Amino acid sequence: MTANSFGESFRLTTFGESHGPMVGVVIDGVPAGLPLSEDDIKFELSFRRPGRPFVSGRREEDIPMIVSGLFEGKTTGAPITILVKNSDVISSLYSEIRHKPRPGHADLTYIIKYGFENWDYRGGGRASARETVGRVAASAIAKKLLMLVGVMVAAHLKSLGTVEADRDYSFEEILCSKYSPVRAASTSLESSYEELIRKAMSDGDSYGGIAEVVSKNVPPGLGEPVFDKLKADLGKAVMSIPAVVGFEYGLGFKLAKMRGSEANDEIILKDGKLGWRKNIAGGMLGGISNGEDLVIRAAFKPTSSIRIPQRTVDLNTMEETTVSVIGRHDPAVAVRGVSVVESMVAIVLADHALRASLIPRVKLTSDQGREVEEKWKTYTEQCRKGHSEESQ
Amino acid sequence: MTANSFGESFRLTTFGESHGPMVGVVIDGVPAGLPLSEDDIKFELSFRRPGRPFVSGRREEDIPMIVSGLFEGKTTGAPITILVKNSDVISSLYSEIRHKPRPGHADLTYIIKYGFENWDYRGGGRASARETVGRVAASAIAKKLLMLVGVMVAAHLKSLGTVEADRDYSFEEILCSKYSPVRAASTSLESSYEELIRKAMSDGDSYGGIAEVVSKNVPPGLGEPVFDKLKADLGKAVMSIPAVVGFEYGLGFKLAKMRGSEANDEIILKDGKLGWRKNIAGGMLGGISNGEDLVIRAAFKPTSSIRIPQRTVDLNTMEETTVSVIGRHDPAVAVRGVSVVESMVAIVLADHALRASLIPRVKLTSDQGREVEEKWKTYTEQCRKGHSEESQ
Amino acid sequence: MTANSFGESFRLTTFGESHGPMVGVVIDGVPAGLPLSEDDIKFELSFRRPGRPFVSGRREEDIPMIVSGLFEGKTTGAPITILVKNSDVISSLYSEIRHKPRPGHADLTYIIKYGFENWDYRGGGRASARETVGRVAASAIAKKLLMLVGVMVAAHLKSLGTVEADRDYSFEEILCSKYSPVRAASTSLESSYEELIRKAMSDGDSYGGIAEVVSKNVPPGLGEPVFDKLKADLGKAVMSIPAVVGFEYGLGFKLAKMRGSEANDEIILKDGKLGWRKNIAGGMLGGISNGEDLVIRAAFKPTSSIRIPQRTVDLNTMEETTVSVIGRHDPAVAVRGVSVVESMVAIVLADHALRASLIPRVKLTSDQGREVEEKWKTYTEQCRKGHSEESQ
Amino acid sequence: MTANSFGESFRLTTFGESHGPMVGVVIDGVPAGLPLSEDDIKFELSFRRPGRPFVSGRREEDIPMIVSGLFEGKTTGAPITILVKNSDVISSLYSEIRHKPRPGHADLTYIIKYGFENWDYRGGGRASARETVGRVAASAIAKKLLMLVGVMVAAHLKSLGTVEADRDYSFEEILCSKYSPVRAASTSLESSYEELIRKAMSDGDSYGGIAEVVSKNVPPGLGEPVFDKLKADLGKAVMSIPAVVGFEYGLGFKLAKMRGSEANDEIILKDGKLGWRKNIAGGMLGGISNGEDLVIRAAFKPTSSIRIPQRTVDLNTMEETTVSVIGRHDPAVAVRGVSVVESMVAIVLADHALRASLIPRVKLTSDQGREVEEKWKTYTEQCRKGHSEESQ
Repeated sequence: MTANSFGESFRLTTFGESHGPMVGVVIDGVPAGLPLSEDDIKFELSFRRPGRPFVSGRREEDIPMIVSGLFEGKTTGAPITILVKNSDVISSLYSEIRHKPRPGHADLTYIIKYGFENWDYRGGGRASARETVGRVAASAIAKKLLMLVGVMVAAHLKSLGTVEADRDYSFEEILCSKYSPVRAASTSLESSYEELIRKAMSDGDSYGGIAEVVSKNVPPGLGEPVFDKLKADLGKAVMSIPAVVGFEYGLGFKLAKMRGSEANDEIILKDGKLGWRKNIAGGMLGGISNGEDLVIRAAFKPTSSIRIPQRTVDLNTMEETTVSVIGRHDPAVAVRGVSVVESMVAIVLADHALRASLIPRVKLTSDQGREVEEKWKTYTEQCRKGHSEESQ
Repeated sequence: MTANSFGESFRLTTFGESHGPMVGVVIDGVPAGLPLSEDDIKFELSFRRPGRPFVSGRREEDIPMIVSGLFEGKTTGAPITILVKNSDVISSLYSEIRHKPRPGHADLTYIIKYGFENWDYRGGGRASARETVGRVAASAIAKKLLMLVGVMVAAHLKSLGTVEADRDYSFEEILCSKYSPVRAASTSLESSYEELIRKAMSDGDSYGGIAEVVSKNVPPGLGEPVFDKLKADLGKAVMSIPAVVGFEYGLGFKLAKMRGSEANDEIILKDGKLGWRKNIAGGMLGGISNGEDLVIRAAFKPTSSIRIPQRTVDLNTMEETTVSVIGRHDPAVAVRGVSVVESMVAIVLADHALRASLIPRVKLTSDQGREVEEKWKTYTEQCRKGHSEESQ
Repeated sequence: MTANSFGESFRLTTFGESHGPMVGVVIDGVPAGLPLSEDDIKFELSFRRPGRPFVSGRREEDIPMIVSGLFEGKTTGAPITILVKNSDVISSLYSEIRHKPRPGHADLTYIIKYGFENWDYRGGGRASARETVGRVAASAIAKKLLMLVGVMVAAHLKSLGTVEADRDYSFEEILCSKYSPVRAASTSLESSYEELIRKAMSDGDSYGGIAEVVSKNVPPGLGEPVFDKLKADLGKAVMSIPAVVGFEYGLGFKLAKMRGSEANDEIILKDGKLGWRKNIAGGMLGGISNGEDLVIRAAFKPTSSIRIPQRTVDLNTMEETTVSVIGRHDPAVAVRGVSVVESMVAIVLADHALRASLIPRVKLTSDQGREVEEKWKTYTEQCRKGHSEESQ
Repeated sequence: MTANSFGESFRLTTFGESHGPMVGVVIDGVPAGLPLSEDDIKFELSFRRPGRPFVSGRREEDIPMIVSGLFEGKTTGAPITILVKNSDVISSLYSEIRHKPRPGHADLTYIIKYGFENWDYRGGGRASARETVGRVAASAIAKKLLMLVGVMVAAHLKSLGTVEADRDYSFEEILCSKYSPVRAASTSLESSYEELIRKAMSDGDSYGGIAEVVSKNVPPGLGEPVFDKLKADLGKAVMSIPAVVGFEYGLGFKLAKMRGSEANDEIILKDGKLGWRKNIAGGMLGGISNGEDLVIRAAFKPTSSIRIPQRTVDLNTMEETTVSVIGRHDPAVAVRGVSVVESMVAIVLADHALRASLIPRVKLTSDQGREVEEKWKTYTEQCRKGHSEESQ
């Protein structure tokens, strides 16, 4: 049962519970010679961090410690372990839910599976979205590796409740949405999302939303035929995220209503090179990347934890009752979910690039190391202008 | 690279190309003592078989041979290998596509990945949907194992192009749709689908559609936390099917537009037992089954192979040209795709039931063997009445 | 339970029973563009084939059929499936052992594990050494891949019973031992082995022996730290062979009696290049190859099937009795075991060379394909002179 | 590349370097409801701890912290992470070896594989035996799980240099050897070993040795046919330990010199139950446990780090030189190696007992939890009498 591990060549194992001492991740398969620092990890974590406006009020600084696999600023080929302490934990808020399972939550299925007395109910325990800290931490490494083949991964919140993007966004707009507190790719959309979230907060309710991830310069040929198709591994990666209820790529579910003559992406010459006319296929054919932009979407359900009272059963008395979830919760998990989906896409792409050995599997040259450092610098400085530090 | 294998405790490895001598599957992890015959496999294969009305005209009898793992009518615990010969192969139909990659197909990505001269273009080679024969064959064994815990898996075509189910169907209607030539769960829907398919055929065009799979009596507690969530493994299983472009469970993408107060499934008492009010969650919470009906959907794109000419590039001349795909193709892959999605769901459920050892991992008792035999008999006789043999 | 699969990047799955219709293997992870024919497989199989003097009298032609993954004489990147029919099967010889488990055999442990009625007792079923046909077949592909990095793998029978090699052999002598009917690396040793085997045959008894495998030109750096050390994967590979009871590399068990000052292999310059003074370490340090000859040994127990009556228990009556195993058995499994150990070493080396991407993981260039073909030709023609065809 | 993980159903991932901040392990697959404390881990670690007489002088308290997977004294089914800080680190001792690779060590193979500048040379980095802390920590959990099926695992140092056990020891003697500072199963052997070690220390030299592990009450039927035979998984587990150069079970290499009529273990009735006459087979037939004592042995080479100067090459000057390894090293790694081999055997047995679901895969009942607690108490108190605290 390798339930807590993911990936074949770039393999992460996450551990830790919401209210335990720490959460963390071990990443196996990183080649030696990759420049890496705790700041790199911190940068990515800053975009899923709670304690910012419009998301959970839990105040976590999320300071990562790299405790293995690093030597003189470079990876060694050994597994990299990253630990992040849980600092702002108020377990008392959770004493009620120990016997009043929350609707829409994993409370009751965990109790059924593992036994009432073995269930670490505090803050959702292992089922908490806090587990995703390890994934986002790992994505910093995945992104650095992907820079060797030029891949850039960007994500935004395409819709929130019934509000949705009214136009197509450029790759840069999507990339820069990371500095938007609600992951909107335009300022007008940002305003609409913020308004909706304020409403949800005042109603004690929550909203669902759709995250979209666009990856540029994905080398053609990524993905294995049959079961490890790129679309299949992306599907698993994304569906494994808490609160995700649907996955699609390219035109996705819309294709089910279309005709082949509309839906087929015709093959053309672009400046003498093979390409596709419109990127209907979302960058994959036969489950293998075709070199066009890779586009996937994840549907998030509304945050299950809401203040509005809902029916449940008291497990002590086995009588029906209601529960109102007080804690400090995201009014829309999709907002912080964007960076998690983005992370999982980066992880899958790095995994497949290693599988195909487009990224060196054992060690980088010094030149490759320097190349990554420069690209990473550009990446972390990009979009910053015009965004206040607090927004992060 | 275990790209051609799937599952952890119930593990299949498929092999074979569309126009090679045969396709097949090796299934590892089947406990000893399960009654099994080639007829069992044949039964399931009959529902994905080409050569019936409304699907591909390729005439394959699809007669399975079990060549390992069976002794005196029962499994032995050794891997089970099933071979199915490719009989009706007309490779000459494909000589043109060797250098004219078909839009919407894997032709060009395979060429890019593996090299032009290593690409078995005949009938799509390994990328052909013929690969799924092995999956459907394996599903017969998965379904028999699931009978030990009472699980039944049924599937139907929920929509075809813009035509869709106008009402909810009972589990039995869905189950019996297997005898409908277009996998419709009602006769009125069947007529609408057939009309649409006839139109597609005469237009030389194709349609997309949505397959839905409902599983009854899924024991609560199936699925592992974090990466091997049931929803994640189902997501991978379904997304690995050719032509599938989207996956969702429960209300799926609709949830992204909803509020938490609507979307949360409240916990109630049903006859004194814990249950959920409406099955919004599609039978899973925190990625673990909750005992309610498990409901998933797969979006199929329209068949890529259409007669209507489409733009492509001739790889010999590197000039733009058009291609009209003549072969014998399904006007809507979703129709035969239904049984493949159904099969993958059964395989994932059997895998997880073995992982949790709800199904014996090493051997069945004689009583369990007899129980499976009886339930299988009931299952294969169910729904038959009123359906002609030809419809299969 | 992936019990029937082995390897990570070069992954084989074997199937089939001794007296079933066929045995076979699926090999996943072979890059596209490797020239391959059924003759290549047949060549390797000829050295483990029964029906030759001094080994089992079972007459198997062992004609391999490649039924997937091959196109126009080259691999395609798809899984390669090889089937070998079981032709000379006399199951009646085995009716007695169904209830009289043979000492030293897996009969009773299979019965305990899988149940008496689920046990395919005919010829040992899945526990038969016939399963190793798939491994030897796969090794032809492994060896071809290894030729890309110059690796050559050779093996011989280092000792049989108390007779053992009296001197060191050259790599060529070891390589050419494949044409010796008893895998002896010198003609004098051959005579001694043959005499011993004749004696075993006339006594109705059997002998154990030690197989040694030497691999030349193994690139330094193969093997992963910690659990997938090269020595660990070799250990598993070799210990998984029927009748193998011990594994060692370099000086092996002898080192346990030595002092560090004798046992450490000093690092020196050889023609200006780093090297080791004596190859005490058997080509591995820290579980990683160091570029010196890789040397491993496998201890085979004597064939369990002997004519001399031995005590057992009749499972029908639960009374003690004796059994005399009549069938057609090897007087020393170690003789044919040599080619199986050699095969497993080649498979592990190919697996690790692919893991480190020293061999291309996705496709070979045409030049690489040609290089393999030429080297293969040399390899199959080497040593033939002076050996009659029958000896094979 | 899952090189740092081991096991299928009980799966550990180790991380950390000798002179990094900590070493650790994540254990996935532990069922919920197992009583567990840091003291349990500490107990097992105390037997591999350095800083005792006759082993390395490095002073490590080895205080384990369990940072995930535990709730109110019981496991939760989530991955268990154990961290152990590296406290007594003197990296300066190692500055010389950065450019003077030590004979018999992994120094040079790591440099070749990962690059000189990416090699964490301090204390051997990842190649250090300190990595095995995680394995021994995990073994405490494995042993507790095995108590549910009555299995006890014990180990001793069977030989050191040319000194070896002169008689057979009882299981209890072997078990109690853990309190011997040199893992001797008798006081007379203890004296001989200690004398030899003192001599090695004064000579600046080292000795090899053989560890033997005996497991009682192993349920018959453990182990999978073909590649995951119990003997194969044990082989890999043991061969993955630093300094192990050979593995055997039962009579092992001795069998290679024997005849079948001597070597076959005859099947007899013991008090009306099936059994084997002598346990020649070491508790396994066909790679599956047969219920007899499981006996394996591991050959350790002498510690590579010795004070006596040895030839090496200075990588800065590429000139031959000598190196004398000063650090604080075990005069015989086999002494502390005993507890590592013992740990790996326990881990493999727990893994296979979970695979066969002889141990509950998801959760223990409260009764099972209590049973483990009682047996653990007995186990940790056993043998203590007559042994001073310091000997640990």
